[in-house]
Amino acid sequence: MGTVKRLNPLDWTFLAGETRETMMHVGSLSPFTPPADAPPDFLRKLMDEIRQDAQVYSPWNLKLKTPSIIASPLQGWVEDDNFDVEYHVRRSALPSPGDERELGILVSRLHSNSIDFHRPPWEVHFIEGLEGGRFAIYFKVHHALVDGYTGAKLMEAGLSSNPKERDTPMFYSREPAERVARAAEEKVPTLEALMSLAKEQAGASRNITKALFKTLAPGKEKNTLVAPMSAPKSIINQKISRNRRFATQQFPVDRLKAVAKAYDGTLNDIVLALSSAGLRKLMLELNALPDKPLTAMLPVNIRPKDDPGGGNAVGSILASLATDIEDPVERFRAIIASTREAKAQLSGMTKMGIMEYSALLMAPMMLSQIPGAVGRVRPAFNVVISNVPGPKKHLYFRGYKMEGYYPLSIPIAGYGLNITVVSYVDTLNFGFIGCRDTLPHLQRLAVYSREALEELEEALL
Amino acid sequence: MGTVKRLNPLDWTFLAGETRETMMHVGSLSPFTPPADAPPDFLRKLMDEIRQDAQVYSPWNLKLKTPSIIASPLQGWVEDDNFDVEYHVRRSALPSPGDERELGILVSRLHSNSIDFHRPPWEVHFIEGLEGGRFAIYFKVHHALVDGYTGAKLMEAGLSSNPKERDTPMFYSREPAERVARAAEEKVPTLEALMSLAKEQAGASRNITKALFKTLAPGKEKNTLVAPMSAPKSIINQKISRNRRFATQQFPVDRLKAVAKAYDGTLNDIVLALSSAGLRKLMLELNALPDKPLTAMLPVNIRPKDDPGGGNAVGSILASLATDIEDPVERFRAIIASTREAKAQLSGMTKMGIMEYSALLMAPMMLSQIPGAVGRVRPAFNVVISNVPGPKKHLYFRGYKMEGYYPLSIPIAGYGLNITVVSYVDTLNFGFIGCRDTLPHLQRLAVYSREALEELEEALL
Repeated sequence: MGTVKRLNPLDWTFLAGETRETMMHVGSLSPFTPPADAPPDFLRKLMDEIRQDAQVYSPWNLKLKTPSIIASPLQGWVEDDNFDVEYHVRRSALPSPGDERELGILVSRLHSNSIDFHRPPWEVHFIEGLEGGRFAIYFKVHHALVDGYTGAKLMEAGLSSNPKERDTPMFYSREPAERVARAAEEKVPTLEALMSLAKEQAGASRNITKALFKTLAPGKEKNTLVAPMSAPKSIINQKISRNRRFATQQFPVDRLKAVAKAYDGTLNDIVLALSSAGLRKLMLELNALPDKPLTAMLPVNIRPKDDPGGGNAVGSILASLATDIEDPVERFRAIIASTREAKAQLSGMTKMGIMEYSALLMAPMMLSQIPGAVGRVRPAFNVVISNVPGPKKHLYFRGYKMEGYYPLSIPIAGYGLNITVVSYVDTLNFGFIGCRDTLPHLQRLAVYSREALEELEEALL
Repeated sequence: MGTVKRLNPLDWTFLAGETRETMMHVGSLSPFTPPADAPPDFLRKLMDEIRQDAQVYSPWNLKLKTPSIIASPLQGWVEDDNFDVEYHVRRSALPSPGDERELGILVSRLHSNSIDFHRPPWEVHFIEGLEGGRFAIYFKVHHALVDGYTGAKLMEAGLSSNPKERDTPMFYSREPAERVARAAEEKVPTLEALMSLAKEQAGASRNITKALFKTLAPGKEKNTLVAPMSAPKSIINQKISRNRRFATQQFPVDRLKAVAKAYDGTLNDIVLALSSAGLRKLMLELNALPDKPLTAMLPVNIRPKDDPGGGNAVGSILASLATDIEDPVERFRAIIASTREAKAQLSGMTKMGIMEYSALLMAPMMLSQIPGAVGRVRPAFNVVISNVPGPKKHLYFRGYKMEGYYPLSIPIAGYGLNITVVSYVDTLNFGFIGCRDTLPHLQRLAVYSREALEELEEALL
């Protein structure tokens, strides 16, 4: 069709930032357990069905107007009249033994492949050969089409909370539901929400980076807020290669909350503590632990002091990961103190103040995407750690029960590791994603985070 | 190490030509049959072994000096001091039922992924899950590192002609053997040999395309040779996308020779006839068959009239595929007549004449790689069909018998289909590779070529 949908400036930024090394697609990985009456050749039959019925609704049928000039200022979305469903929906399989390790390797590879901009920029892979007759869905979408949180909500439209429902249409064959649109407007503390804030701060200019330079320029404006802590240089804050490593870990929320409460911390604090413990141990093994503690940036919901209605604003805080402290309990206490202080500071601000502060924090990360900037623009923090709400009910794909919901976010130049956590009913699902070359053995972060939880639990006995 | 090995101008051309859509890597696919005593978990144990012993010899340890500026005139090869063997040697698996179709789909996808220029530009994939306990090796290497024929010879160093030999080292762990180097110098009629000729014609200039323009400019020089036939425009002579389709077919050489002989043709003629029949049928189904016959360019060995020693020269001929003729026997006879005429013409030339003619034929294909040239530079032919000699003995990978040896060559802008054929002992192995979008249902070429052989055989009864 001839209609062109303009890109909003933030989406455009994600296109303009795309390089061979920094690929701006996000994803999710979900393993599924078969029902007792699982039909043999379930996935084969599914593909037959998919080939027959290729009804596809917006945004899944949208492709770039000028795919050869990705960063064109006239870029927009047009409908793909030759939608090739077999390209977008794929079957894959795991080599034996089909364990979590092999799943991690395959998904790391799939996520290292760039998106084809001549088509609607998404793919979904049904991965068979997981132990126990299980399969997994790996989903990948370019951030310019939908952000991770909205994409996840749209994907869920292809799942059902009813294990008996065996004819749920594929997510791309569902008409855009109002419910989903509304969900995407919730004030969820995501990285995208923060980038939107930074963009609003930058005003109506299409050129975010130029405006951010202004925000950073000292003296000129009333930047009286706390300047970002100086983060130490580290192996995760270098140029990155195009290859990724991905690892996952799942924890019961109750178990995490119990430990957090025992130390008078929050769920976010324990997320930081487990990430911190993993990073400390891995970096020690790599002989690359900085003397100064690593710092993390967290998107959070904050109640501003000038909002009488008690509404929330999305903001960002900077927390110490206390990776210089050897004792796990002391380290956890230092993290708790650090986030508490940061939140106290933020909640003393007006809504506008929170926005300004967040834009300031985001600026170095966005500036680092200018070619040659990495190493010159000092990182304001070492790693982004996001904690995003996910599905509250168990979900099923035609009777197969979704076991977990692991996010894959975007490592970028200068920020070669991202830790995103999504809740799913009574579990917290960690997705560790990083650059294959600058952070070897990333998979160990998943193992070490579990050990870290056991350590904190044992210290309570 | 600090030593830089300069690229030769032809290799440099393959780097300079690399785009998101035209990827200059070649490959091969080989299925293997297990021995009676096949160890369980053969491939798993192989990977364990590979991880322990990462001895890697030239050229497999060479990476580009300036990977971020691919077409740098100062480009060269340097040794990779951080060779990451797990990146280059990979395990994959097929979804059920693990048949040839699923193998084709997986290899098409793997071949659609671009090579990482920050590492030695090659990958080898051990693909398990083929029916009957079989596995396949898919190998991929950038043409700038080695050409397809040399690459295949080097790969063979990791195979054995002895089914009892179970400890053959991996191909990259073999010291470069003199034997292999010599083999690569044989006068084999490959596309690469032709491009080398075209390059020699262009003189010592690094800028091949500029020199070729001169070769094409009429009048100035003594180009009295037959001008290329004008090929019809067709769907396989358009811009291409970055995605590939790959299909394979294997024929007993005796069967092909019997049919060829019965019609007084050559093995090359029957290769053309089967390709022609497939293209005609597929294009009819797509409602895209040109009125005028499609033409093919074939690299061939020719005995020049001025070589008293009876030596061979590599040249190229242009043959009609006679796709305008409905009757298969008449079509075959027209093809035979066409190649006979072309060869007669070529063998009447001096060695220099053959070189000039070949350079002339190659020029439009090389010119078509200049951005924007496709559609303006008229194709001299529609498709390249190469027939390359392969292994003469059955080969084994640690007791697993190699069943076939299917080449994957390079579709380029304006030439969206390539048919390369390799002999393996008593079989001829077809590799059909094309652009996924401009040539839908390419897989049918494999099916139709088999039907075409049966048709010609039946006509003889």
